[in-house]
Amino acid sequence: MPQNKDKFLNKILYDGILKGDNTILAKAITLIESSKPEDKKKSVELINSILPKTGNSLRIGITGSPGVGKSTFIDSFGSYLHSLNKKIAVLTIDPSSSISSGSILGDKTRMERLSQLKDVYVRTSPSKGSLGGVGRKTREAILLCEAAGYEIILIETIGVGQSEILIRSMVDILILLIHPGSGDELQGIKKGSVELADIIVINKSDGELKTLAEQTRKNYKNALHLLNSPTDGWCPEVINVSSIYDEGIPEIWKSVENFLSITKSNQSFEKRRQLQKIEWLHKIIEDEILSIFENNIEMKKFIRKIEQNVIKDSESPYSAARKIIAKLILSSKQINIAS
Amino acid sequence: MPQNKDKFLNKILYDGILKGDNTILAKAITLIESSKPEDKKKSVELINSILPKTGNSLRIGITGSPGVGKSTFIDSFGSYLHSLNKKIAVLTIDPSSSISSGSILGDKTRMERLSQLKDVYVRTSPSKGSLGGVGRKTREAILLCEAAGYEIILIETIGVGQSEILIRSMVDILILLIHPGSGDELQGIKKGSVELADIIVINKSDGELKTLAEQTRKNYKNALHLLNSPTDGWCPEVINVSSIYDEGIPEIWKSVENFLSITKSNQSFEKRRQLQKIEWLHKIIEDEILSIFENNIEMKKFIRKIEQNVIKDSESPYSAARKIIAKLILSSKQINIAS
Repeated sequence: MPQNKDKFLNKILYDGILKGDNTILAKAITLIESSKPEDKKKSVELINSILPKTGNSLRIGITGSPGVGKSTFIDSFGSYLHSLNKKIAVLTIDPSSSISSGSILGDKTRMERLSQLKDVYVRTSPSKGSLGGVGRKTREAILLCEAAGYEIILIETIGVGQSEILIRSMVDILILLIHPGSGDELQGIKKGSVELADIIVINKSDGELKTLAEQTRKNYKNALHLLNSPTDGWCPEVINVSSIYDEGIPEIWKSVENFLSITKSNQSFEKRRQLQKIEWLHKIIEDEILSIFENNIEMKKFIRKIEQNVIKDSESPYSAARKIIAKLILSSKQINIAS
Repeated sequence: MPQNKDKFLNKILYDGILKGDNTILAKAITLIESSKPEDKKKSVELINSILPKTGNSLRIGITGSPGVGKSTFIDSFGSYLHSLNKKIAVLTIDPSSSISSGSILGDKTRMERLSQLKDVYVRTSPSKGSLGGVGRKTREAILLCEAAGYEIILIETIGVGQSEILIRSMVDILILLIHPGSGDELQGIKKGSVELADIIVINKSDGELKTLAEQTRKNYKNALHLLNSPTDGWCPEVINVSSIYDEGIPEIWKSVENFLSITKSNQSFEKRRQLQKIEWLHKIIEDEILSIFENNIEMKKFIRKIEQNVIKDSESPYSAARKIIAKLILSSKQINIAS
C-alpha cells in the first residue's frame, strides 16, 4: 500500500530530523523543494508534524548584491558563532545551479572554513524556481533546520528584485552587505534594500579600501537619518567588517545581541514572529488560490484580454471588474477543495 | 419612475461637467464620494460615461508632513501655472473636516491667491474615509476634473502612513515637500516617501532658514544616490523653494517640463498610465470582493479565529489555509453578482 509506505518514509524523516541527522535533513529539504505533485502532500504532512518543534532559533537574513562577499562574510561570521559553541545552519542559493537536488559543491569552495566543521549544516538550494534569490521553500527549510536543533540559521539571499522584501518576512534580523564606495559608485547596489536592514555591513573594509570604507560607513550613517527603521525601538547600525581578516565580526554579533535584548524586551521580536506566521498563512492561501486558476488557461486569457480593453479605454474598469469577478465565482463553483 | 429620474440627473451632471461648470463638477464629486448605496450605481454610470473624455491632463501629486507648507506651495505654484495660462484644478483633503460635503472654507484661508482666481477649481474633500490623506475616490475625482477640461491637476496629500504609495499610483509625477533641517531634525518627516518622489522641494528656503535649507538640499542630493528613482530614465531633483516669496517656483515648473519631455520620449509616462489603469482595475476587483465578505461577519470571525490558532501554533498554516479557502468557496456559491 503506497499510503502506508508514505507514512513510513515520513516517520523516518521525522525521527531523523529530530535526532539531528544531517543526511536526513538534506533529504527532507529536497522533498519540500520538490515540485512533483506526489511530493506536495508528503511535505505538507512533514511540516505539520515537525511544527511543534520549531521556532526556537534565531533567524538571520544576509543580503547584498553579487560580488559583495556574502559567502566570505558567512564563512567568517559562521566560524565565529561556531567558536561560541552555537549550532549553526546556513541556507544558501547556488546561482549557477539548476539541478533539482541540493548541490554542496559550490559551497565547498565558497565557504572553506564552515564546510570543514562537521556540526555546521550548509544547504545550497538551486536557484531554479526561486524569486530573486529566495527559494520557494526557504520558510519551510528554516523550520526543518529548527526541528533538527540548529540555534542560529543564516539565510543568504542575492539582493535582486523583490528578494529582500521576501526574506524580511522570514527572518528576525536582516543584515545588508555593502561595497565600500560612495556617490556614483553606489549606483550598482540595490538601493531600496537599505530601508529593510537592521545592520548594514561595509564589507571589504581592509587594505586599499579601508579609508573609502570608513567614509562609506559615515555616508550610510547619515543617510539612515532619512529612512525608517524596519524594527520598532531599534536604530539600524552601520559596521565596518573585513571578512577575510575576521575584523568587525565580534562587533556584528554584539550588535545582534543588542538587537535581541531590545526587541525581546519591547515585544517587537515576538510581534514580528506572529505577523510572519499570519503572512505565511496568507501566502499559502494565495498560492493555493493561484494554483487553482494557474492551470485554468481560459481564465488567464480572459483576464489578460479584459486588461487590454481597459488599457485601450474600450472598457471601463468597473464593468471589467464585474466581468472578472463573475467569472471567478463561476469557476470557483466547479472547484472541489475537499481532496 | 426613479430610474428615469436618475438618468436625467446623470445627463445634467454629464453635460455640466463637459461644459466646465464648476458647480456641477462639485456636485459630481460629492456624488462619487458618497457612501450611500443608492449613489454607488449612479457614480459608476457617471464615471463610465465621462471616461472617453479623460486622460488629457498632467496629474501632479504634492505630499509632505503637516506644517511643511503644502497649501502655501500650491498657492504659489498654482498661481504661477495660472499666469502661464494653464487651466488648474486642485484636489485637497481638509484634515479638520469630517462633513460629508466638500467644504471650501478651509481653502479660502489656506490658498488665498488661488481661491480668488475664478477659472481655478479648488476642491476640498473631507478627511473622513480617506486613507492617510488620500480620498477614497481621489482617482475618480481626477477623472471628473479632466472631463471638465482642466489641464493640470494638483493633488495634495498629507504625508502619513501609506498615502504616498497610494498617491504614487494615481499621479504622473510626485513632488515631496521637505522642511529645512538636517540630521535629527529630519526625524519628524515621513522618511520612506523620499524614494517615491520625482522632485524634492526644500520649502521655506528663505530668511533665517536659507543657509540650513541649502545644506538640506545637499544632504538630500547625496542621499538620493542611495535610493532608486521611482521613474525610468529620470534622476530625481532637489530644489530650494520659498513659497511665500515665490522663489524657485519657475525652476519647479522647468523640472516638471524636463520630466515630461524625458518620460514621454522614453515611453515611461505612457507605461505608468497603463499600469495605473490595471492597478485601478485590480483595486476595484479587490474592493468588490472585500465588500462581498465585509458584511459577512461570520466569515470575518472565522478568519480571525483561525489566524489566532496559527499564532498559537495550535493549527498548521496549511490546514488553516485549506479551511479558509473551503469556506471562501462555499460563501461565494451563495453570491449573486448579476445585479
